[in-house]
Order: sequence, then structure tokens, then C-alpha cells
Amino acid sequence: MAEQLTIGLLGGTGPQGRGLALRMALAGHRVLLGSRDPDRADAIVADLLHGRDLPVEGRANAGAAAEADVVFLVFPYAGQAEVLPGLAGPIGTKIVVDVINPLGWDEQGPHLLEVPEGSAAQQAAALLPDARVVAAFHHAAPRLLIDPDRQVETDVLVAGDDPEARGLVLALADQIPGCRGVDAGPLRMARQLEGFTAVIVGINRRHRIHAGLRISRLGDDKRRRLNAELQQPRGSGGLKERSGSPPANTDREEGP
Amino acid sequence: MAEQLTIGLLGGTGPQGRGLALRMALAGHRVLLGSRDPDRADAIVADLLHGRDLPVEGRANAGAAAEADVVFLVFPYAGQAEVLPGLAGPIGTKIVVDVINPLGWDEQGPHLLEVPEGSAAQQAAALLPDARVVAAFHHAAPRLLIDPDRQVETDVLVAGDDPEARGLVLALADQIPGCRGVDAGPLRMARQLEGFTAVIVGINRRHRIHAGLRISRLGDDKRRRLNAELQQPRGSGGLKERSGSPPANTDREEGP
Repeated sequence: MAEQLTIGLLGGTGPQGRGLALRMALAGHRVLLGSRDPDRADAIVADLLHGRDLPVEGRANAGAAAEADVVFLVFPYAGQAEVLPGLAGPIGTKIVVDVINPLGWDEQGPHLLEVPEGSAAQQAAALLPDARVVAAFHHAAPRLLIDPDRQVETDVLVAGDDPEARGLVLALADQIPGCRGVDAGPLRMARQLEGFTAVIVGINRRHRIHAGLRISRLGDDKRRRLNAELQQPRGSGGLKERSGSPPANTDREEGP
Repeated sequence: MAEQLTIGLLGGTGPQGRGLALRMALAGHRVLLGSRDPDRADAIVADLLHGRDLPVEGRANAGAAAEADVVFLVFPYAGQAEVLPGLAGPIGTKIVVDVINPLGWDEQGPHLLEVPEGSAAQQAAALLPDARVVAAFHHAAPRLLIDPDRQVETDVLVAGDDPEARGLVLALADQIPGCRGVDAGPLRMARQLEGFTAVIVGINRRHRIHAGLRISRLGDDKRRRLNAELQQPRGSGGLKERSGSPPANTDREEGP
């Protein structure tokens, strides 16, 4: 791959953060796994790498945000509103990928929590008004992400109001074996993506599996072409063709 | 198939109603396609059958509800709250399958409408307190349903608080070629199922396809066994093994 990005995974010490760190490093990116406690981040990274030679390093969240080209938010939902305001400075105008599922659990099983802004990703967008926020990777099973010998059998639905940001994250999704990036439209669709995780978690519990989801009848050639076009307005030719520079920020564009 | 049900499709004159009518008739059931205007229902049925010898008949909605063993609600969302109170009598304690997607459309594309009860299916349950309401078939593309030569490539996620009702509707889904019934848990999950239709409609628009969704890593043998167990508490052995009697009503049970 021509372009190596530096990807900061904020709150990345849980199963989903560790799994995404591994897969992004295997795809050729430099990964900064962030935690409130940088020592804990270092310990998690050492455990994750198992001596493998991959470019993953621990950081404090603020440091990971400052150094990264693209920032992933992998906090527990309860922590996001508390932590994000303090990270708005280092995040700035970067592309932010919100992976957070605001789920609760009771005697009836998993359920979606009410979020005043509509979704965790819309909450992040409200707290990071300069950033280009997309929602993605909700349905990638941590158990599959963490095992490099397995395919992560899911489509990765990506929602966001900035087409170029959506296009870049769709390309990142395609770099994980078994995943397909699928454009899910504007950021307000994040509520549907986060909510569908409750359905999948319930199915996982009943069937004792690590399910994902596939959009049926979706041709791969057309999908790749439409996804690549999202990155075209800047004339950059998309993630694969870019030079090593971090993605520059442009004015926000609304979805079509 | 051992059991033939009488299925009433209320508000069934639109593309989804016509498609479900055709598929349920092809599966061996007797179908009553309901409309406010029984003459219109008759005309739609004549057009749908094209001279094919299938057990589909037109009815007024109230008549379809009264004669049916299982009632499908296929109204536009805007009509449900207006129409259902007048049908609560003939629907009584029957199994009700709410197929309604409360979707709006604006310059950003499709989006989910707010529903005071949480979802269209929960609204139906509130208006039909004696019925056993499940939500299902949201993601089955009308264009595929209506063409008997095509597979309807989607999993049919079924949510409802009555396990036996869920089990019966899961079995009905399995009778449509290309569909798999997947238990999606309690009725409150209907919001997630209805909302995901907005995602699929957006993908359809971008890709000019008739998409559905598949749950990945879901084994069919276990799926069929777990689905069949939902119908076991009454000792009936499930849809396929039943005699010709309509499903009796039992006390409501909450999901596990």
C-alpha cells in the first residue's frame, strides 16, 4: 500500500480497540493506542504484540490524538461526553471515526440507550465541532479482529457528512480481510448503525457466535468505484494512490 | 407443507403487500389482501394473479382481519394510528406481523421518523393490546417479492415479546425462497429493524439495487433448531407439524 497513516485509537485498551489496532497495523499503518494512563497503554500494546514486529505504540489519549492523522474513538459510551472536550484541541480538524455503541443491558437483553444528540457519533460531532466525524466499525466482532488468522466477516457501514472522510474510512475498512466498506450516507444514520449492534449482540448471545452483517446484492466493482469517488473531489485519487502526507482538511461538504 | 394458514394482509395493496401476498400464497397459504375499498382489493388481486391459480382474494380490511389466522400490517406508517383502532375488534388476540417502516425522506435521503411508542410495531401493540405483535419482513425488497422467479435475498429479522408468535413468523419467513428467519429478540428491537430499512433504502438509491441483509456466521442448523424451539412450549411441534387449526392464543410470555 502506498500510503501509511498514523492512526490514533483513543480509549483503545478494550477488546475492540486492541483488535482494530492489530488490523490497522497489519494493513501497514502506524498505530498509537491511547489510554488515560500511558503506562497501561504500553502494557496493553506489549501484550497485544506478543513479540510481533508491528508499528503499534502506547500513548496518553491526548498524545495519540495530537500525533495521529486519523483518530478513532473507542471509549465506552459513558466516557465519551466526559473525555472528548479535553481532547478537542489535539483532535482539531482531523477525521474522527466513532466506533462507540451506546448499549445497555437488562433482563430482556441488549438495548440502545437514548442519546440526546441522536447517536454517539453525533454527540462526538457536537463536542468536536471542527473535526470531520464519521461512524463506522460497529459490527466488527472484537474476537475476530484480534485473531489475525481469521477473516472479519462483516460489511463495515460508514456514515458521515463529509464525503472525503467517509471515503477514506471506507478504504480503511476494505484493508481488513473479510470486511467491505459500505457507504451508509449522512451522519444521522449513525443511530441506525449503533442500534443494529444491539440486534447483533442479541443474536450472538442466542447463537453463541460472533456475527456480523452483509448487505446482499451489493456488487463489489460498483461498490469500490462509488467509494473511491468519494475521495475524488480533492483530486487525490483516493487512499491507495496518495503520497505519504496526512490527509489535509477541506471545508465540510454535505452528503449528496 | 402440512399446515395452511389464512393470512390477512391489511393495507396490502402496495408493492410490499402484493409481494408478500404472492409469496405467502406460493408457500401454500390462503391469502386475503385487504384494503379500505374491497373493490380496489379485488382489482389488485386480479392484476397480481395474472390468471395464475393461487388462493389470493380481495377483502375489506375488517373482513380480512376477521377471517385471518395471522394478520400482517402493511399500511403506510401515516395510516396505522388512524386505522388500527377500528380493526382491534376483528384482530382480537391474533398474531399480528407489523411490516411498517416509519420512514421520511428529505434532501439528505431516507431517515427514520420519531414514533412516540418507540417503533411502528410498538405503536401497533399499544393500539391492539390483546394481539400478539411481532415486527418482521422490513428488509424484504418488494421488487424481489413480486417476482416468483427470483430469490428474495435477505434474512428476515423477527422481533416480538411472545416466543410462539415469533417462532411462527420465523417459520413463515423460511418459506420464502432466499429468506432466512432470524430471531431478533423482544419487540423493543423493532425500532432497530425499522431504522435499518433507512440504511438499506439509502444503499439501494446509491447503488441502484434491491439490497437485503444477511447475518454472517449464522449456522442454519442451529438457527432452525432455535427457531423451532420457540414454538415448542405449546407442544405443537411448530408450524410444519401442526394440524390445520388456526394458532390458538396463549398467555403472553416475555422473551428469555
